[in-house]
Amino acid sequence: MSSAPPEGKPRVIAVVPARGGSVGIPLKNIKPLLGRPLIDWAVRSALDSGIFAEVWVSTDHDAIAAEAERSGAKVFRRSAETSTSVASTESAMVEFTTAHPDFDILCLIQATSPLVVPEDFTKALAEFRAQGADSLVTAVRAHRFLWRKDPTTGEASAVNYDPLRRPRRQDWSGELIENGAFYFTAKGLWESTHCRLGGRMALFEMEEHTLAELDSQVDWEIVAGLCTKYGHFGGAGRPAAA
Amino acid sequence: MSSAPPEGKPRVIAVVPARGGSVGIPLKNIKPLLGRPLIDWAVRSALDSGIFAEVWVSTDHDAIAAEAERSGAKVFRRSAETSTSVASTESAMVEFTTAHPDFDILCLIQATSPLVVPEDFTKALAEFRAQGADSLVTAVRAHRFLWRKDPTTGEASAVNYDPLRRPRRQDWSGELIENGAFYFTAKGLWESTHCRLGGRMALFEMEEHTLAELDSQVDWEIVAGLCTKYGHFGGAGRPAAA
Repeated sequence: MSSAPPEGKPRVIAVVPARGGSVGIPLKNIKPLLGRPLIDWAVRSALDSGIFAEVWVSTDHDAIAAEAERSGAKVFRRSAETSTSVASTESAMVEFTTAHPDFDILCLIQATSPLVVPEDFTKALAEFRAQGADSLVTAVRAHRFLWRKDPTTGEASAVNYDPLRRPRRQDWSGELIENGAFYFTAKGLWESTHCRLGGRMALFEMEEHTLAELDSQVDWEIVAGLCTKYGHFGGAGRPAAA
Repeated sequence: MSSAPPEGKPRVIAVVPARGGSVGIPLKNIKPLLGRPLIDWAVRSALDSGIFAEVWVSTDHDAIAAEAERSGAKVFRRSAETSTSVASTESAMVEFTTAHPDFDILCLIQATSPLVVPEDFTKALAEFRAQGADSLVTAVRAHRFLWRKDPTTGEASAVNYDPLRRPRRQDWSGELIENGAFYFTAKGLWESTHCRLGGRMALFEMEEHTLAELDSQVDWEIVAGLCTKYGHFGGAGRPAAA
């Protein structure tokens, strides 16, 4: 990819939605994680990947806007309508692309996945282009057995293995679980569906520790621990945390 | 259940397999977790549940045997044959039940799930009996989207949702994921199959934080954090950690 002429290079734009009124943790998007505001992790990894023509944070909140700029992102001031707890992420993305239609590939990055590293973006874009895909989802491979419970009888049944022949880890490839870290959407698909995924879909596998979700205070501590070991500290934006 | 006459009460026996040669973390089964050997968490919760006639630790290692006794468990000395890294858990359970056939329900408890609390055992047994089940599995409900990747084309497809109509958390019941904390097996099923699960199966839902797996040093720290908040500290066995 790196040797491709500039003309052939798609214009990839990243958007990190980060509204002020997050449910659960107040102002979660700029809550410090190892001393850095949450959005700084995703923004810095995006900037350092070098694949994005622009990295935006879409927000309705002054303090989030200020932190986003400090991290090196551009700020898109989203409306109150797309910032409510019931507004979809897609509605905020539509608002952004209406104002900034100059892209070939749109990348939605979720600030709640701070464990993304620059190489994830680079490799995922290569996969996306190699597949000739319209969209891309990130996922983690996990060896997890799934069950169903009959709502009438209460009886349980295994979905993805035979309990009488329990497979060993090494004999089974496991399940691919969407981790929600980021998505690529080609402009054509986006304009026709306004949906992050569709058309020919590619999948990029990320490391198992990226499955952790930032939902509660406990998860916050878990993710901070994981960031210490796996997080991206280098490069652009603000100086690395101590 | 509590008012049932002693004669009608099933004899439930718990076994925690804990061999010395665990892969990855050396002597994992007695590695301190918040100051208590790993097996102490499962053993103490089992004892404090009050549902077990006996709680056993099955091991081939002297130090594990000593810690098991200190926690209040009985010790079953398993053979070298069922203690290798390729021997199945079931083979160790068969060895135990051959030596101790006096039970109505066998409960296999995995030491790698220290977040189990006494109420889990109590409630799961009630569910098992209410269902008239032959076996029981424990699981966690998680809102996770699953994907498949075509091995030939590399194309990805969603397994359990429509990406064009992304369900909100509150509109979707999620997936039931086996957490491996413990299993019940009725004697009849066990004698005919020597398999922990089969026949009419019941499922007991545990809290989402019990999904964490004790695989690596990082997970160990995560689980220690979760034990601080959710673990069982009370009652029988050794004094609670500071």
